[in-house]
Amino acid sequence: MSHSVAFLGLGAIGAPMAARLAAAGHALTIWNRTAGRASASEAAAGGARVAPSATAAIAAADVVITCLPESRDVAALLDETALDAFRAGSILVDCTSGDPATSRVIAQRLAARDVAFVDAPVSGGVVGAVAGTLTVMVGGESAHLERVRPILEAFAGKIVHCGAIGAGHALKAVNNALLALHVWSTAEALATAQAAGVDPAITLDVINASSGRSNASMNLFPERVLTGAFPRTFRLALLDKDARIAAGIARDAALPAPTLQLAADLMAVAHRELGEEADHVEAVRVVERWMRTELRG
Amino acid sequence: MSHSVAFLGLGAIGAPMAARLAAAGHALTIWNRTAGRASASEAAAGGARVAPSATAAIAAADVVITCLPESRDVAALLDETALDAFRAGSILVDCTSGDPATSRVIAQRLAARDVAFVDAPVSGGVVGAVAGTLTVMVGGESAHLERVRPILEAFAGKIVHCGAIGAGHALKAVNNALLALHVWSTAEALATAQAAGVDPAITLDVINASSGRSNASMNLFPERVLTGAFPRTFRLALLDKDARIAAGIARDAALPAPTLQLAADLMAVAHRELGEEADHVEAVRVVERWMRTELRG
Amino acid sequence: MSHSVAFLGLGAIGAPMAARLAAAGHALTIWNRTAGRASASEAAAGGARVAPSATAAIAAADVVITCLPESRDVAALLDETALDAFRAGSILVDCTSGDPATSRVIAQRLAARDVAFVDAPVSGGVVGAVAGTLTVMVGGESAHLERVRPILEAFAGKIVHCGAIGAGHALKAVNNALLALHVWSTAEALATAQAAGVDPAITLDVINASSGRSNASMNLFPERVLTGAFPRTFRLALLDKDARIAAGIARDAALPAPTLQLAADLMAVAHRELGEEADHVEAVRVVERWMRTELRG
Amino acid sequence: MSHSVAFLGLGAIGAPMAARLAAAGHALTIWNRTAGRASASEAAAGGARVAPSATAAIAAADVVITCLPESRDVAALLDETALDAFRAGSILVDCTSGDPATSRVIAQRLAARDVAFVDAPVSGGVVGAVAGTLTVMVGGESAHLERVRPILEAFAGKIVHCGAIGAGHALKAVNNALLALHVWSTAEALATAQAAGVDPAITLDVINASSGRSNASMNLFPERVLTGAFPRTFRLALLDKDARIAAGIARDAALPAPTLQLAADLMAVAHRELGEEADHVEAVRVVERWMRTELRG
Repeated sequence: MSHSVAFLGLGAIGAPMAARLAAAGHALTIWNRTAGRASASEAAAGGARVAPSATAAIAAADVVITCLPESRDVAALLDETALDAFRAGSILVDCTSGDPATSRVIAQRLAARDVAFVDAPVSGGVVGAVAGTLTVMVGGESAHLERVRPILEAFAGKIVHCGAIGAGHALKAVNNALLALHVWSTAEALATAQAAGVDPAITLDVINASSGRSNASMNLFPERVLTGAFPRTFRLALLDKDARIAAGIARDAALPAPTLQLAADLMAVAHRELGEEADHVEAVRVVERWMRTELRG
Repeated sequence: MSHSVAFLGLGAIGAPMAARLAAAGHALTIWNRTAGRASASEAAAGGARVAPSATAAIAAADVVITCLPESRDVAALLDETALDAFRAGSILVDCTSGDPATSRVIAQRLAARDVAFVDAPVSGGVVGAVAGTLTVMVGGESAHLERVRPILEAFAGKIVHCGAIGAGHALKAVNNALLALHVWSTAEALATAQAAGVDPAITLDVINASSGRSNASMNLFPERVLTGAFPRTFRLALLDKDARIAAGIARDAALPAPTLQLAADLMAVAHRELGEEADHVEAVRVVERWMRTELRG
Repeated sequence: MSHSVAFLGLGAIGAPMAARLAAAGHALTIWNRTAGRASASEAAAGGARVAPSATAAIAAADVVITCLPESRDVAALLDETALDAFRAGSILVDCTSGDPATSRVIAQRLAARDVAFVDAPVSGGVVGAVAGTLTVMVGGESAHLERVRPILEAFAGKIVHCGAIGAGHALKAVNNALLALHVWSTAEALATAQAAGVDPAITLDVINASSGRSNASMNLFPERVLTGAFPRTFRLALLDKDARIAAGIARDAALPAPTLQLAADLMAVAHRELGEEADHVEAVRVVERWMRTELRG
Repeated sequence: MSHSVAFLGLGAIGAPMAARLAAAGHALTIWNRTAGRASASEAAAGGARVAPSATAAIAAADVVITCLPESRDVAALLDETALDAFRAGSILVDCTSGDPATSRVIAQRLAARDVAFVDAPVSGGVVGAVAGTLTVMVGGESAHLERVRPILEAFAGKIVHCGAIGAGHALKAVNNALLALHVWSTAEALATAQAAGVDPAITLDVINASSGRSNASMNLFPERVLTGAFPRTFRLALLDKDARIAAGIARDAALPAPTLQLAADLMAVAHRELGEEADHVEAVRVVERWMRTELRG
């Protein structure tokens, strides 16, 4: 079965995802709030049609994919006009790293118009999107996932059915909350050992051969912190949002999750201190400032 | 140069370390508080002499190695009689996972008797001790480390000079504080996603292919938590102590380290709730109790 | 102007509030989930009519007052049948210690039926309810507050207009989160000083003459903790809920509030450990257990 | 019995304490690191002799009183020369807000020279020092306290024997840790309610009539925060130090005290962000910055 697909939101991750959909031969319509990004995109070069509005893109598709900063952006996009534009029997695949509560509200509104919904946030970064090796975490009905699986395969290396609507968002959020916590805690550990006279490079080397290691310590600190490089690959503002979603799920479920709550608060502080453009690993700079040191080596 | 070596403390890690020293042909005297453990040890079988007292063992050696639960045990062992038993020009190698402040006091007392000191905690567990692949983290003077390096090589796969006295203890402590935090935070993450409908096995699988992974999530949770096996390999009481040391270093140095402080408090609570014999991974049981769930799958 | 008033929820606080409304001469209809509590109530003895159902009570009144454990109880009560029973032009005064988000949803549903809403949680306890000296924190339109002010005055000593819908709930929640935090932190302080050799009664006496004092230290600890009396006046389960609401407001607003988050998590743990019937001050028992002491004197 | 008294450390609190000792007719010798402060002091005007060195002051007295920023300042003052200057049978009364561990070391050194020690930190601020109404928290032997009680009465309104050496310091530290926590948590509460639409002045007014009130909310916030006055009466750097002492006592005693630990970390951060001269209530400015608001009204 051939689908017509709409892709809304050509950000750092969305743009290469759309490019892969175009390259896979899907009939693709794209839209982006800043229209210039759509017409200049690799997807457009690859044959995607640029829609003049989100509503026009939605109206043209059986499968609508959104990839926006937050769930509230998705909700804001789906005003009455946009909701009315969905074809009956179509499906919204929300690749936003969003929150389960908002997704459940969106899904209800769509269901009233006979439109299905799955949340489908991705991990793997820009590199994974370009390579088509993203992990896609899907929340929603299995039948809905199966309908869109061939489309997701254009950019997915792994597709995981996580549970009901919102389950994909929840899983993405807790993974990123752990990332946030590990970045911060590793910085605290290096600075604390440094206060006892240990060079950060030595501490990191030993941790990475021992039980305290994490993706943060093995991949982010050697390349980005000790070098002082701090490349901007994933915005702290987005990691702050993800950690907040994870902490919010625990809070709303009346679950005591003190480490996730602390991670969320520390990310909120770092985001406030470092601004909108800072990379997520730059949260380490706040630890450095508070501890009056630099973790280079 | 041939050394006479004394090894004090034949616990879970100490016993195989001593066995390797005996096997390497060092003139070895061993002692353990519970004397039966010494005479029944593999080291004794391998030729080590069992001393009737710690003082006798100390008096017989150029190199004294201690491997006790805490620094205060080392300090308690080194009463005036024991201190007087050290040979002038000898060295104490403290393999205890101890704390820098106590080690500095011990080192001062020994220096007044012309005895050198290095702290040399190890990582790698019982498996590493048996295989002789432990990582040894050494704090103290380089010259002192070089004197004992041939002896350490009997059980070490890697020897790292970390800095001045206490630096080895500090590095071991912060590594273990990270381990403690990651065990706890991964449990919170699995339980929070579970509250949003995601099976813990799925969450763990995705995290382990993504940015939130750690040694805890990759090695401990699949084999020990999801299976419910919880083997007893490293006591929670000791991890509690290590996390407390790391948090104490930060506190004494006036460094704000909120994630290390929280890790230490959560370990203290878990230790209190689960008792002296619980394994460190069983801290997860406290998260499970507070969140009214079990993380099996 | 004379109002007909319905009062739904005759719990520990609700019952004396209703009794005061009856005594003040309002035409009062009462309802309680457990019907026996309504017919046996002081309000009924004072002339209130006992309604056979919530819907019947709602249908009989211009002013409907709810006083339930949580906002979700209010939302659950207001099913379609109950919503349809409201008289056009009537008003719901929700004295529940609820949460702003749920109240805003409830208010929207009522507004669609031309029914006004104010949130109006109270403080002052059972004593204040009996004496008619409660502080009432009102969120909603001023005009709506003025309509019901004469009715609130039956049990209020002080009526405070806090802001828009939900503002009353928010203020009640943050006050109670502070109470929760202060109960816990005072226990930690007494136990920590005790570890340094200070009798809890001495610590409390000095704190209460100094800058660390709070309502918790001045009123709750002398009478309830040091005596071991722990009377049951306000359930920990409810304080847990209030602290969770406060922490949730901060989280949803992306505000880093680490002390409120920690207070909420500690209350959740204490609630889990001590059960549904424990008094809020009994949270101290968890601190005592973790610190292996008793704060008596 | 008439005593000769030395007073070392004429800071904000020490200066009026010394002045009261002079006015009470004690034979008083004073010393201050910045000598000009001593000669220009009210105590000097009242008849106190200005010593040329700490050692000279110590040598001249039966009772030596220290009032310095931290215990390490006291320890640094008491070098070998100064220790040798103490008269046998004399006593050191340390009014510093110090830490128990350092005080125990100091006491040991003094005991070896037949000099007694009591820790005797004070609360009540400059106002209390001028008025002679300070609360003095004494750790040490009862007999030692009785020896110096007539001298303490020159500036004390209340003298409390807290326990053994260090008990006074511990009590002072936990009181101030509570103060620190309550300042911060009240700011979080006001900002959180503000996010739900409640004016900070209204929130504060209701809290102060309700169960969440504290010395911070009743005395500090109305006069200093809502007005924006932030007078400099007690340095944040000192409150940071006190909170760190309290948290350190708990940590060293292996007691989980998460709220005290968090208070200490937040004070360390605020101290780092606001500098050495900031007043303790200015910690609220950090909450305001993180929450992007101002708590005025």
